[in-house]
Amino acid sequence: MKIIIDAMSGDNAPLAQVRGAVMAAKQYGQEYILVGQEDVVRPLIEKEGGSGLPIRVRNATEVVDMHDDPSTVLRKKKDSSMAVAFQMVAKGEGDAMISAGNTGALLSGSTLIAKRIKGIRRAALPPMLPTATGQVMLIDAGANAECTAEYLLQFAYMGSYYMSKVVGVTNPRIGLLNIGSEDTKGDALRLETYKLLKAAGDAGRINFVGNVEGDDLAKGACDVAVTDGFTGNVALKVTEGVAKFLGNQIKKIFMKNVKSKLAYLLVKDGVAEFKKMFNAAAVGGAPFLGISKAVLKAHGSSDEYAICSAVGQAIKYVESGIIKDITDNVEYMTL
Amino acid sequence: MKIIIDAMSGDNAPLAQVRGAVMAAKQYGQEYILVGQEDVVRPLIEKEGGSGLPIRVRNATEVVDMHDDPSTVLRKKKDSSMAVAFQMVAKGEGDAMISAGNTGALLSGSTLIAKRIKGIRRAALPPMLPTATGQVMLIDAGANAECTAEYLLQFAYMGSYYMSKVVGVTNPRIGLLNIGSEDTKGDALRLETYKLLKAAGDAGRINFVGNVEGDDLAKGACDVAVTDGFTGNVALKVTEGVAKFLGNQIKKIFMKNVKSKLAYLLVKDGVAEFKKMFNAAAVGGAPFLGISKAVLKAHGSSDEYAICSAVGQAIKYVESGIIKDITDNVEYMTL
Repeated sequence: MKIIIDAMSGDNAPLAQVRGAVMAAKQYGQEYILVGQEDVVRPLIEKEGGSGLPIRVRNATEVVDMHDDPSTVLRKKKDSSMAVAFQMVAKGEGDAMISAGNTGALLSGSTLIAKRIKGIRRAALPPMLPTATGQVMLIDAGANAECTAEYLLQFAYMGSYYMSKVVGVTNPRIGLLNIGSEDTKGDALRLETYKLLKAAGDAGRINFVGNVEGDDLAKGACDVAVTDGFTGNVALKVTEGVAKFLGNQIKKIFMKNVKSKLAYLLVKDGVAEFKKMFNAAAVGGAPFLGISKAVLKAHGSSDEYAICSAVGQAIKYVESGIIKDITDNVEYMTL
Repeated sequence: MKIIIDAMSGDNAPLAQVRGAVMAAKQYGQEYILVGQEDVVRPLIEKEGGSGLPIRVRNATEVVDMHDDPSTVLRKKKDSSMAVAFQMVAKGEGDAMISAGNTGALLSGSTLIAKRIKGIRRAALPPMLPTATGQVMLIDAGANAECTAEYLLQFAYMGSYYMSKVVGVTNPRIGLLNIGSEDTKGDALRLETYKLLKAAGDAGRINFVGNVEGDDLAKGACDVAVTDGFTGNVALKVTEGVAKFLGNQIKKIFMKNVKSKLAYLLVKDGVAEFKKMFNAAAVGGAPFLGISKAVLKAHGSSDEYAICSAVGQAIKYVESGIIKDITDNVEYMTL
């Protein structure tokens, strides 16, 4: 398998990408193509001990940054590492592409260069949230602010395939994020989507468990929560905000006085584990579901471990055959 | 002031209502009318030491319960404590009404019996969430799943008046809950609402601070977060769910072993304070903003302290003159 890595995107580029590729080559084998400024990247590979490993460089002179307009940058900066990486994966010069760059630009490139699977209306970049029993995929959570019921039906199928094939959840439970559990609840979009998901569930194609409410997410009531990108983004960021706020409150409790500082020393390990749970999002790659090629986004702040872990995700994603599954079943997802 | 209390609604009715009224009469003075089954309520008032206090009873033979259809129950159970209380407040037989009953039925009654202020399109029942710097009102959060930009404009004004007049926040900061901070972000509803709020801010009628994201709520970035009832309800319940989940995780950290249990004893007070912060919602009353009479909902699980505290809220609400403020300024809130 050939993994294309956009070497110039993200807060720690290109060092994190070079080190991550070296680490991944040792851990997973496979071949790597680092796309970026050759005169910078090539010496770095040598310096980081990658000379004998199957790591090549493809020159790209420009860099996409966070201030570029996501919708036009890939046309304007045709020789950017991101644009070149997209062209390569689109032409089949690699099996998967990983970038820690501008999310909006990655979504544009996925849609315009790597292309959606035929029949899929919108790609989604679904995050995973920790729950009392494991994790839940929130699909969509920002890519698509305005959605139709058909988009949501497609999100449900794609989320189901991903959780089953890539994550390994048996018969993943699909919930519709709503404001009540009864099937009469919600706005027009939810009422229409409910019917579509119910029919897909009755036909045995997905395991639809009905409506779930905001507080059901953390309870672990479903493995995939289907929602429009507006609501999903708010739910995701509220989760992050509340987790951070409560984390700070806990810190205050421990920092209050000598007694509480002693208490902290006694539960230090537990607190560290707790923090780790909410940092999971910053590790590994999230796939653009619905795209005909494997395109994975690594977190902007990725270090070498995160890049290496994103490579692991990309390999799993390609090996799972999920793109073929979606392609073969798209007839059930279109109205 | 005369406070009408629906004595038969809520998990602890009528004992919590009777005790709460006795407590409030001693604390705040004022007059009270408990609406409910006379043969049950009257002896209870005597038993709970309310005989010499200005607490009267109005008989109502039926009870609205949680299984009743909110949209029809007040027509079907005309002699229910809730329906009678609404008729009384509508006729001016009291200055405010408090009920711990079925939220949907209370919303119907507020709209159909107590009536909206002329020009106000929808009433809202906005909850308060704790933040790093105080609290934020989330308006709307469930009453109205489908909203127009005009509804959201009205929510902004009503939230601003409430925070300023009833809660006492100087020049409350109004934010539009959105999926990005730039004014080009969001769906069609948000783009349209942004313009209206910006104009109201530029005219000096509200203190519009722009878009806020989900994680800005807990940071305390605004005093009023304006949103449609669907998104607001999801945001509210995600907050509750994450807080509960994290609370349980913290509990696990402390319950792990002898060392951690000792740690718990050292920070017990801090943890108790922390819990209290998130129980605030269960205490006191939330007003139906936009209704021409003071109608307050107490939490379904209210005990006597919560009822007494809801009375305190009701008195503040009436004394603030907020209903007149909204009525006098409705011309700025209609398109």
